Amino acid sequence: MTSPIRWRNGALELLDQTRLPAAEEWLRCESPDDVAAAIRRLAVRGAPAIGVAAAYGLALAADGSREHLDEAHALLAGTRPTAVNLRWALDRGRAAYEEGGAEAVLEAAHRIAREQEDADRRMAEHAVGLFSRGDRVLTHCNTGALATAGRGTAGGVIEAAWAAGRIEQVWVDETRPLLQGARLTAWELERSGVPFRIVTDASVGALMARGLVDRVVVGADRIAANGDVANKIGTYTVAVLAARHRVPFYVAAPRSTFDPDTATGEGIAIEERDPSEVTRVLGVQVAPDGAAAVNFAFDVTPSELVTAIVTEVGVLEPPYDRSIAEALLA
Amino acid sequence: MTSPIRWRNGALELLDQTRLPAAEEWLRCESPDDVAAAIRRLAVRGAPAIGVAAAYGLALAADGSREHLDEAHALLAGTRPTAVNLRWALDRGRAAYEEGGAEAVLEAAHRIAREQEDADRRMAEHAVGLFSRGDRVLTHCNTGALATAGRGTAGGVIEAAWAAGRIEQVWVDETRPLLQGARLTAWELERSGVPFRIVTDASVGALMARGLVDRVVVGADRIAANGDVANKIGTYTVAVLAARHRVPFYVAAPRSTFDPDTATGEGIAIEERDPSEVTRVLGVQVAPDGAAAVNFAFDVTPSELVTAIVTEVGVLEPPYDRSIAEALLA
Repeated sequence: MTSPIRWRNGALELLDQTRLPAAEEWLRCESPDDVAAAIRRLAVRGAPAIGVAAAYGLALAADGSREHLDEAHALLAGTRPTAVNLRWALDRGRAAYEEGGAEAVLEAAHRIAREQEDADRRMAEHAVGLFSRGDRVLTHCNTGALATAGRGTAGGVIEAAWAAGRIEQVWVDETRPLLQGARLTAWELERSGVPFRIVTDASVGALMARGLVDRVVVGADRIAANGDVANKIGTYTVAVLAARHRVPFYVAAPRSTFDPDTATGEGIAIEERDPSEVTRVLGVQVAPDGAAAVNFAFDVTPSELVTAIVTEVGVLEPPYDRSIAEALLA
Repeated sequence: MTSPIRWRNGALELLDQTRLPAAEEWLRCESPDDVAAAIRRLAVRGAPAIGVAAAYGLALAADGSREHLDEAHALLAGTRPTAVNLRWALDRGRAAYEEGGAEAVLEAAHRIAREQEDADRRMAEHAVGLFSRGDRVLTHCNTGALATAGRGTAGGVIEAAWAAGRIEQVWVDETRPLLQGARLTAWELERSGVPFRIVTDASVGALMARGLVDRVVVGADRIAANGDVANKIGTYTVAVLAARHRVPFYVAAPRSTFDPDTATGEGIAIEERDPSEVTRVLGVQVAPDGAAAVNFAFDVTPSELVTAIVTEVGVLEPPYDRSIAEALLA
């Protein structure tokens, strides 16, 4: 599908993911502030896609002073705390500036986008062998093209395994509060022709107890050195259920999602978002006036619950401290 | 609080739970058909409240022929398959007719309502000792006055433990798809002054991993002879997480919720509701046009995950086959 991130006439254009699937609208971002605002309100989301968008956001600041570039770097890095791809992409953009000046920052952004496309393609190739004909695969949140600007992490893996005749049906968790599953993953799978059914997040246990789930594949926002995985809130719950029902639980993520400087999941900052995302659903108030809510955006799945991690350099297996370190050197 | 079910001027009036918390509107039901429609669309819900409403629904048919009564019994019994209180209440109404004629059916309905109030009060009394000062208690769906027309099952237990100074805060699962937690439990707790915070269903794992949940209390729609518990979809997931994190998991239910004729949870019919409850949220479409969804209304929690079951005759502990059989004879 068309990438949800494009550089056009000197500005960054983003397919506004807050409006999907009801409307396909493009946002034009002409400054780092525009990009930061778009990331904050999730017009662009998904750890790899945030990295790509932030790299272009930095490019929008690159024709000014070095101070201006540093300000944009800090602004964009501060938009969301959990995804590590964001900081990784910004650091690459700044390093490019130091070597090649303003034009090199835009080139770095283009290169990051191309590399992500390439990583997505390779993850999908490495992962196909993990699936068997007839598999019913469950996924959480959105990890397709919208989340990476390539073909997707877990979403790309699922489409490739389906194209290879190995997936019968996809279970799509709706993924409250912002419904990235019901809105975005469903939209992508419908366009790709992959058979799917949406369920509420609370249905996963019942599906597994009925023997209706053969595998789980999810993405990641940050992976610690020991293999602990921060991902969309609810991922940990799915992993606990998968372990109980002996359903393989796979994570698909490019190496830019790994954070070797964070030893375990305990060190990962978890973003807490506005409670109104819980008390309202797509703008409609559901809870009583003034009701309090808590809205953690991510949770941490301990590596012991992860069957394998699919990367662009191969499928990593436990012990993850070693396999991750090797993958990062590859 | 005021009961959400009242008999007034020869008709059954129900506080329409589909409209809460936005509006407090009463539905007037003048025939068994009105009551059946109200049960089907969840204007009244909660296993004990459904039983009470159905008993009054039968009373609305009792001044006609015996055939008319039997038709009303079949109509009402067929509205929802999982809650066993429904059939239990209808059978009591029919037995009353056989003994005392038309007037006895209404008297039976009044008696069922009074007995439920009494059972709720006793469940709360028995349960208080299970809680400790400072407890942060998680609950799923709605089990307060709205669900029983008394003071509630799990909801009544929570209010009593809070009044006894043993609860610091309640975590309210929003309970998709129909948001009975965010809409109804939040509304009840707000009116009672019990401190609470709403979370998405997918947040329970993260809360427990952070050590923020001391106990879980839920209601039940049907309990099999071995202690397997059918309850609102998502309950099983919460129970699996509670077991992993060694959080006590309590079920509160009157004896009318037990089904000694069903040996295990595998024998419990699970209602599957309209997929549009998932693809739409309170009437707002969230998924793409034509997207398929699956909407199981309940799941089954195996008795091995249940720490104790609170009834009006005491707190039952494993082995449940024995303690349940004894409670039903008490």
